[in-house]
Amino acid sequence: MSGDGTPPRLASQLAFLVELDKLKTVLRRTSLIDRSRAENTAEHSWHIAVAAVLLEEHAVGHGVDLLRVVKMLLIHDVVEIDAGDTFCYDAEANRDKLEREERAAERLFGLLPADQAAELRALWEEFEARETAEARYAAALDRIQPVLQNLHTEGHSWRAHGIGRAQVVHRNRPIGDAAPEIWEHLLARLDEAVERGHLEP
Amino acid sequence: MSGDGTPPRLASQLAFLVELDKLKTVLRRTSLIDRSRAENTAEHSWHIAVAAVLLEEHAVGHGVDLLRVVKMLLIHDVVEIDAGDTFCYDAEANRDKLEREERAAERLFGLLPADQAAELRALWEEFEARETAEARYAAALDRIQPVLQNLHTEGHSWRAHGIGRAQVVHRNRPIGDAAPEIWEHLLARLDEAVERGHLEP
Repeated sequence: MSGDGTPPRLASQLAFLVELDKLKTVLRRTSLIDRSRAENTAEHSWHIAVAAVLLEEHAVGHGVDLLRVVKMLLIHDVVEIDAGDTFCYDAEANRDKLEREERAAERLFGLLPADQAAELRALWEEFEARETAEARYAAALDRIQPVLQNLHTEGHSWRAHGIGRAQVVHRNRPIGDAAPEIWEHLLARLDEAVERGHLEP
Repeated sequence: MSGDGTPPRLASQLAFLVELDKLKTVLRRTSLIDRSRAENTAEHSWHIAVAAVLLEEHAVGHGVDLLRVVKMLLIHDVVEIDAGDTFCYDAEANRDKLEREERAAERLFGLLPADQAAELRALWEEFEARETAEARYAAALDRIQPVLQNLHTEGHSWRAHGIGRAQVVHRNRPIGDAAPEIWEHLLARLDEAVERGHLEP
């Protein structure tokens, strides 16, 4: 028991959950589809966790452990509480991204009881390494959602940052590895976006 | 294949995911802990899905199917896209809540392929009925988070709406049924909140 009578495991878990509230104020480059504001990382994480449930049949091999995928997606970006969101097309900021995020993982997961800290840290590292079927599917979902949001906002963040088709294809190729049917659909829509002037050729 | 070559199942799934973006603009009465703005339902859903993963050991019986709980929490409030958020302490608005939400469920889940529409609709109804161990644990998590946010903002939304301790206890009793250790901790903190003037006696 801690001083106020709360079991220490519960106190650590609640402290972590309270800390997580900050992810709601980390803004991404992607706009909401209604273009009212930038999306934050907490709601982005929710959106792709729902996508994991709905698009499971499109994952290569049909053999992912969905609970692992969802857990991974729920916590895949919590390091941004300390490290901030790094725009995927910003080469400069991506140079020290790993170091900043490692420090953040140390502090944030360190708020939890040791067993849970280890579990979440391992899930985050698995996501980052993109080697297991679960991590590949999770990485695809993390990429599908911003593409969809751009496709439904006339390329709002692509145009704001002068992004071209080749950059989008390069960045999002992991979708093709993990969910080829979805990738094929998105590639056709990228071509439409170029035709409409929402994405640079 | 639909007109643009997209398989119809995928087209329905993506249409539903695009529609879900609107949940990010549904505002709740709860404030973020930094008090910068009201919380939205999408980020709230993310927060309690993470809580489900972390607090599982506190669920009565230790036998919940965590994936079902997480799925339930991810979609438990999507009906608010059409029906809006109904403040839990607003008796008037709660009178026609069920009817408004039923219509919303019909339209929103109806965007999905029939098998997925049925699965999500059933999960939502299970959550609402609060009869299974999964639904009871999910309902507890849905209540724990706003209490925590009030406790960490000097009772921001309690004070804004003149909520008293008895109302909070009545509303949140399901936490006691599903996660008694957490409820005991929160009850002690409600007493502190009353002492500090953050919650009416």
